[in-house]
Amino acid sequence: MRLSAFFVPTAKEAPAEATIISHQLMLRAGMIHQESAGIYSWLPLGCRVLNKVTAIVRAEQDAAGFNEMLMPTIQSADIWRESGRYDAYGPEMLRIRDRHQRDMLYGPTNEEMITAIARSYLTSYRDLPLRLYHIQWKFRDEIRPRFGVMRGREFLMKDAYSFDVDTQSARLVYDQVFASYLRIFARLGLKAVAVRADTGPIGGDMSHEFHILAATGESLLYYDAAYDDLLLAGSPIDGEALRALYAADAELHDPTACPVAPERLRQARGIEIGHIFHFGDKYSAPMKLQVQGADDRLITPQMGSYGIGISRLPAAIIEASHDQAGIIWPPSVAPFRVGLIDLKPNDRQCADAVADLKAKLEKTGLDVLHDDRDIRAGAKFADMDLIGIPWQVTMGPRGLQKGLVEVKNRANGERQELSIDAAVNFLVTHCLVTHCLVAV
Amino acid sequence: MRLSAFFVPTAKEAPAEATIISHQLMLRAGMIHQESAGIYSWLPLGCRVLNKVTAIVRAEQDAAGFNEMLMPTIQSADIWRESGRYDAYGPEMLRIRDRHQRDMLYGPTNEEMITAIARSYLTSYRDLPLRLYHIQWKFRDEIRPRFGVMRGREFLMKDAYSFDVDTQSARLVYDQVFASYLRIFARLGLKAVAVRADTGPIGGDMSHEFHILAATGESLLYYDAAYDDLLLAGSPIDGEALRALYAADAELHDPTACPVAPERLRQARGIEIGHIFHFGDKYSAPMKLQVQGADDRLITPQMGSYGIGISRLPAAIIEASHDQAGIIWPPSVAPFRVGLIDLKPNDRQCADAVADLKAKLEKTGLDVLHDDRDIRAGAKFADMDLIGIPWQVTMGPRGLQKGLVEVKNRANGERQELSIDAAVNFLVTHCLVTHCLVAV
Repeated sequence: MRLSAFFVPTAKEAPAEATIISHQLMLRAGMIHQESAGIYSWLPLGCRVLNKVTAIVRAEQDAAGFNEMLMPTIQSADIWRESGRYDAYGPEMLRIRDRHQRDMLYGPTNEEMITAIARSYLTSYRDLPLRLYHIQWKFRDEIRPRFGVMRGREFLMKDAYSFDVDTQSARLVYDQVFASYLRIFARLGLKAVAVRADTGPIGGDMSHEFHILAATGESLLYYDAAYDDLLLAGSPIDGEALRALYAADAELHDPTACPVAPERLRQARGIEIGHIFHFGDKYSAPMKLQVQGADDRLITPQMGSYGIGISRLPAAIIEASHDQAGIIWPPSVAPFRVGLIDLKPNDRQCADAVADLKAKLEKTGLDVLHDDRDIRAGAKFADMDLIGIPWQVTMGPRGLQKGLVEVKNRANGERQELSIDAAVNFLVTHCLVTHCLVAV
Repeated sequence: MRLSAFFVPTAKEAPAEATIISHQLMLRAGMIHQESAGIYSWLPLGCRVLNKVTAIVRAEQDAAGFNEMLMPTIQSADIWRESGRYDAYGPEMLRIRDRHQRDMLYGPTNEEMITAIARSYLTSYRDLPLRLYHIQWKFRDEIRPRFGVMRGREFLMKDAYSFDVDTQSARLVYDQVFASYLRIFARLGLKAVAVRADTGPIGGDMSHEFHILAATGESLLYYDAAYDDLLLAGSPIDGEALRALYAADAELHDPTACPVAPERLRQARGIEIGHIFHFGDKYSAPMKLQVQGADDRLITPQMGSYGIGISRLPAAIIEASHDQAGIIWPPSVAPFRVGLIDLKPNDRQCADAVADLKAKLEKTGLDVLHDDRDIRAGAKFADMDLIGIPWQVTMGPRGLQKGLVEVKNRANGERQELSIDAAVNFLVTHCLVTHCLVAV
C-alpha cells in the first residue's frame, strides 16, 4: 500500500480530553475518529488492526469447536422480559421504540436471543453439545464513556455460547475456552491475568475475567506472585498451572480468607479484555429451553457464555506496548508488518529499487506500507514510529549505491545495513513466524 | 467440517409467511432465523455465505483503490440536521434518545458522517482524491418488511464514498466503480443489469441501479434487447458496451422519449443489489467541507457514494440459482465447495477412506462439509441438495471395494464414478478455478 493513497491523518498532539496513552496514540496515529461520546469511527489504519485482531479471535473460536453465526444488533424487548432482565438492566440498556411502537433495544449482550434460538430448534439430547459464537457490535449506554475505545458505548464483542446436557460437560467447555483465551491473548502479544470474578448482571456460579496489567486499568486485582513468574518465564505459558494459582478481583478478594501469604500477594490494576461465565440454567430454565433426554425425561441444558471485547483490544495492546515515539505493534496485529521509507521518491533509481523490494516482500505474503510521500525524511521516520510498524526499511540513493538498505526493529530500535536480498530473507524469517506463547 | 458438529437445522417445509423462493429456501436450509419483523440472525451456514460474499466485495473495493474503514451504527442527529435530511428522512429512520436525552439515530446510510470526517482532516487539494468504504449494519424501519433478508429492517451494506477536486475526476471514479460492480456481481455468479435510476433521498444528478432479473423483483425495468445478448454471450462481459445501451427503471423511463424501437425494448422485473450516485456538492456544500485549491481559492469537493446490499445478495443469488431440490450455490460463495456423503459412518474402512479424501481436499485449500450423521442415505442426499453444495462426493463400502467414489455436479445433476485420486484432481481443477466473466 502506498501511503499517499492510504488515509492516515497523523497528528503531533492529542486533544486534552484524551487522558490515557492508548487513547492519545490512537488519535495521533489517525486510527480512530470520535463521532459522539463513546462512539468512534475506525479510520483505515485502525480498521486494519481491528480486522487482524478479529481474524485471530475468529480462528481460535473455530479451532475450539464453536460455529460462527451472526445475531442482529436490534433485539425485541420480549425475550428480555422472559429472562427477567428487561427491568433489571437499568439505564445502560439503549431502549428503542420502532415505528409501530414496539419495545426494542440495542443488544448489550445476547444470552436471551441465543437461548430463544436454541429453543426453536433443539429437541433431543442428541442435538447437544451446541457451541455458537458471533462477532457483532453491542451498545451499553455508559453514563460517562471515557478512555476512547477502551470504555465506549458502541463496541465490538465476540460472544460465544455453549449448551450442554449436564454440568460436567458444561464445565469441560468452560475449561477449553479458558485455555483458548490464553492462546488468543498470547497471539495478540498480550500477557493476560485470569482472575476469579463476580458474575455481575450475566449471573451464574463461576466466572473468570481476563485482564492485562496496566496502571490505567479500572479493576483492582490480587494474585499470587508466582503468577508473575509464570507469565514472565516466556513461552510456553502453562494454562493449568496458571489456573491453580490464586487470583481474584477486588469484589471477590477476601483478605481474611486469602490462601496466599501477604508477602507473596501482588496487587495491581488491570484492564478487562475477556470474561467467561458458567451459569447453568439461569436462562434455559426461565425461558423454558428443554430437550428430550436419553431416558425420555426432559433435560434443561446447562449454558455458559464467553466474551472478548474486540474493539477494546487494540487499545489494550497499545497500553502494554508503546514508547515515547508511539505505538509498538506486535507483528500479529500490526496494520502492516513492514514499512518502506523511500528517502527520495523523485529519484527514479531509488523509486525502482523500492518498488522492486516491495514486490519481493508482498510476493511472500508480507503486507507493506510504502511511504512514497514527498516530505522530509524526519517526518517519515516519526510517522512510521508513531503508527508502530514493527519492521522499517529505509532506502535512499546513498545506501543503494553500495547496494544497501537499513532495517530497523521498532521494538528495540536496533538497526542494521543489509543488501536487498539479505533484507528480504531477514524480514521473511522474522515477520512470518507466528509466535505462540501458550501450551495448554 | 463434520456436519454432526455444525449447526444446520434443515426443515422439509417453510412457514406460510415465506412467499418467495429465496426466503423459503434460506429458512429450510437453516441459514437464517427470524428475530423480529425484518430482523434476522444468520445461522452458521448463512453466516459462511455472508462472509464469502463480504470477502469478494471487500477484495474488489480494495482493488478499486478504496480504503476500508468502519463507521458506527449509531449516529448523532446533529450532522443530519446540518445536511437537512433529519426531518426529510421520515419514519424509516430509527430515531433514538440516549440516557442524556440526546437525539441519536441508527444510521440508514452514511453520507453525513463521512462528510463530517472528511471536514475534520482535509485541508488541501493535495489531500484529494479520497476514497473510503465500510461494511456495516444499517437500519431502515420499513413499514412492511418482507421477503426475508431481501427487504429487512436491519441489513448489511457496503457503502463507499469518494471526494474529488472536480467533476471530471469525480465522474472518473464513478466509471471505475461501475466497472468494479460488474466484476463483483460476475464473481458472485450474478448477471446484473445496470439501469439509469432516480437518485431518491440520496440526491445528486447521476445514478445507476444494479439489478438481477427475477419475477419476484420489486422494480420494473426497461432495457434494450441487445443487453440480453451481451449478458447471455458469456464471458467476458463488456462493461462499456453495456453502459452505452438504453436501460432505465420505471421512474426514469419515458416511452415517448425512449431511443429504443418498441420491438427491441424489453420489460422485466428486477431485484436491486447495488446503487451508485454522483451527487457533487449536495453534502459538501451545506456541511461546509472545503479545501485549499492549487490557486489558493477554496474548493468544495465533489462527492459520490456507492452501495451494495450485502445481506440481500445471498437471497438474490438463490432467486437466480435454485431448482426443485433446493439452492444451487455458485462455487465462489458456496458455504462449502465440496460435500462428502459417508453412506456408512459406522463402517471403519469407509470412515477411514472418507477421512483420507477429506484431508487430501482440505490440503488443497478446498472447504469440505462431511456428512457423518448416522441417518439414512436419502435424507443426506436431500440435505446436500437443499443446502446447495456445488460438488458432492458419495462414498460407500460397495464403491470403495472397487476403489470408486461418485462425484455429482449439483448444478446439472451429472454424476461420474472416479477413483479417489481422480476425484481429488477433478475437484481441485473444477472448484479452485475462479471464473471472472467481466473485462472492463
